[in-house]
Amino acid sequence: MIEEREQKQGRIAETVTDHLQDGTLPEAKRMLNALHPSEIANLLESFPPAQRKVLWELVDEEIDGEVLLQVNDEVRGGLIREMDERELLAATSGMDMDDLADFMQDLPRTLTGEILHSLDNQNRQRLEAVLAYPEDSAGGLMNTDTVTVRPDVSLDVVFRYLRMRGEMPELTDHLFVVSRFDHFLGVLRVSDLLTRDPAGRVEDLLITEAVVIPAEMSDRDVARMFEDRDLISAPVLDSRGRLIGRITIDDVVDVIRDEAEQSILSMAGLGEEEDLFAPVWSSTRRRAGWLGLNLVTALLAAYVIGLFEATIQEVVALAVLMPVVASMGGIAGTQTLALVIRALALGQIATRNTRALLLKELGIGLLNGLLWAAVLAGVALVWFGRPTIGVIIAAAMTINLGTAAASGVLVPLILKRFGIDPALAGGVILTTVTDIVGFTAFLGLATLFLL
Amino acid sequence: MIEEREQKQGRIAETVTDHLQDGTLPEAKRMLNALHPSEIANLLESFPPAQRKVLWELVDEEIDGEVLLQVNDEVRGGLIREMDERELLAATSGMDMDDLADFMQDLPRTLTGEILHSLDNQNRQRLEAVLAYPEDSAGGLMNTDTVTVRPDVSLDVVFRYLRMRGEMPELTDHLFVVSRFDHFLGVLRVSDLLTRDPAGRVEDLLITEAVVIPAEMSDRDVARMFEDRDLISAPVLDSRGRLIGRITIDDVVDVIRDEAEQSILSMAGLGEEEDLFAPVWSSTRRRAGWLGLNLVTALLAAYVIGLFEATIQEVVALAVLMPVVASMGGIAGTQTLALVIRALALGQIATRNTRALLLKELGIGLLNGLLWAAVLAGVALVWFGRPTIGVIIAAAMTINLGTAAASGVLVPLILKRFGIDPALAGGVILTTVTDIVGFTAFLGLATLFLL
Repeated sequence: MIEEREQKQGRIAETVTDHLQDGTLPEAKRMLNALHPSEIANLLESFPPAQRKVLWELVDEEIDGEVLLQVNDEVRGGLIREMDERELLAATSGMDMDDLADFMQDLPRTLTGEILHSLDNQNRQRLEAVLAYPEDSAGGLMNTDTVTVRPDVSLDVVFRYLRMRGEMPELTDHLFVVSRFDHFLGVLRVSDLLTRDPAGRVEDLLITEAVVIPAEMSDRDVARMFEDRDLISAPVLDSRGRLIGRITIDDVVDVIRDEAEQSILSMAGLGEEEDLFAPVWSSTRRRAGWLGLNLVTALLAAYVIGLFEATIQEVVALAVLMPVVASMGGIAGTQTLALVIRALALGQIATRNTRALLLKELGIGLLNGLLWAAVLAGVALVWFGRPTIGVIIAAAMTINLGTAAASGVLVPLILKRFGIDPALAGGVILTTVTDIVGFTAFLGLATLFLL
Repeated sequence: MIEEREQKQGRIAETVTDHLQDGTLPEAKRMLNALHPSEIANLLESFPPAQRKVLWELVDEEIDGEVLLQVNDEVRGGLIREMDERELLAATSGMDMDDLADFMQDLPRTLTGEILHSLDNQNRQRLEAVLAYPEDSAGGLMNTDTVTVRPDVSLDVVFRYLRMRGEMPELTDHLFVVSRFDHFLGVLRVSDLLTRDPAGRVEDLLITEAVVIPAEMSDRDVARMFEDRDLISAPVLDSRGRLIGRITIDDVVDVIRDEAEQSILSMAGLGEEEDLFAPVWSSTRRRAGWLGLNLVTALLAAYVIGLFEATIQEVVALAVLMPVVASMGGIAGTQTLALVIRALALGQIATRNTRALLLKELGIGLLNGLLWAAVLAGVALVWFGRPTIGVIIAAAMTINLGTAAASGVLVPLILKRFGIDPALAGGVILTTVTDIVGFTAFLGLATLFLL
């Protein structure tokens, strides 16, 4: 099925590309606008900038806003630069306030005032409420369009109110019950509204122990909470317990997906919003820092090797085998690291179990160290015919796999203590340790026992 | 806030640990069962097996089932082994059919028949419907408890039916409209039900272009669709267009989270369901294969170095510097690889844009290659005082970063063509290429120009 879906998208993309090259733009435009905005966004991201620009011109103006919300930050910036003020204002109309708040951060300053001006009083207040919180907090994630009812009315009155109101906000599985001063009291489930006697009162169906979200909670914590409790929507309260908004699962799904993408990309020193077709020059600059950092650590390892130049001069076989010891340490350490990073993200590691974890990983490291050390010793013996080299490389490998296990547990824990993201820096530090220990152990033992 | 939540969980975990050690189990039991089942599951995963077993005894029997559904497969297997048949049967009662279908795969064969027997006719048919599809397909993910209505009735009749029915399934944002033969016609939005005139008829509010999911669609595609279309629930149809179930966002969120965790762990050659405290011996065996594979590639690189033994004997500085060239290639290649793997997952790479992507990455690789080659040449010159070594290492590094860029684009594309997960095998192959090219370029150029 993945193939099928990709094939469908692929066929459309190929056809659109053909039409772009033929210059039969009306046909391309028709095909493009038949897609869902999220599919258009995905397609735009997959084209190099020049073609992307032509394609963007073809997108119907009514869905510009929705498409802009779906593309990644970097692509969005590029598309916005192609639009004039009138088009940008048109794109913002009809956006939810949480989306609009995010979107405004990408707009030229001059437009911000104009947009605030174009909103009615209620929406302006709502937008300002969202803008008051950081983008990655519950307050920044929330939507302000909530349906509230009083506790002392009957369900019949609620029905009359809803029919008068007309549209319901999307993803409404609860109505929020508030006091006269917007103080949050609890929720009324839509399913209760549908299935209970309409003469009953709201307060009799009021669920007071509903999950509430403080506006300052981080978006990742919000995501975990939605996931753990299987929520669709949850009320956001300010520090005084007043209802100020609502977070819905669709926004949470985006947080989870972003978080997942970020940890994969950040292990490679990349930002989450990296455009597939970012300009060569700006990508080069962005990646240069990471490469420079790794050059420093590689030179550190080279320095360690340099200390044993005399030994290598004596026995060249050591130069041939030394990368094997270092590389196996890196691989084994990365396995432990990946496991520990996931457990840290789930809040599963604390002082109480660090020792047990360390012992377990050391056990695995030493057992695998002994196993592969024996194999490697055999290979070295056959290759170079010197039993001592076999014994030395086996010892070095066991030492390095033990070190790798310990570093895999301790490096992320220490990084976290210092407030550094282990997914970002863990790999670099770990491989630096296993390189240095690997080279030192192997060449050091060789210096002691071979010369 | 992350800290706050973790601290809270941490405090509970510490206190429970204390109570376990003191032997004040009633207190530990009280604290434990005050938690949400998902929090209990998280806590269980974070304890080593012996303590986990004691803790599991303390969990109230009524929530055993919910907790078992939340822990990862490996931990679940361990907990199930601690339970007798009666407890297991009790745990399955009240499970949704999709959960029960997953759960049954972990149970001893003897129990499967008993469970099927304990269900009423309707639920048995439902369970068999779910079991008929693979676990990772829409059919395996779906729940069979749907609320259906006929098109030719009034909303008032729907209300009467719902009130008679009592409970609604969780996450019901649509009722499904079906013909007399269960043929799916469209959906009726709950919000329309709430806000429209109750005298109106279902068919007037029927939405026929609702998203429908074929039972064979893969769970990842289902997740993308929910994400792209901001769905809460969607109907699942069999190949003849009959409504057979419903997928809800909570199950989809689990798929997204699993997918994300899996790609991080699989890059390190680990399985998604790896238990933090898996027994040392079974973990050792599981990780041994990955290490063995990497030993083979490391020996391949060593073999290449071995070809230049004579050169290294002559100029030992080469042995000192050669890992730098190889390692920088690996780092640069991994950056391209991470970007391409993400784009592949989003279906953004096809024949039409491979060339543009390759050119862009080659450009970045060569620019960064030249930049850091110059720096490295300077370092080599100062360190060893031989300008030729500087020039040679700069040339080798540029060659290797170009190779890394090309491999970062092509290796995942080729793997995908052969049906191999690029996240799993991409890194190993890539670094093998950059190691071999790095060593060959550097030592080869040195052999040509230094001797």
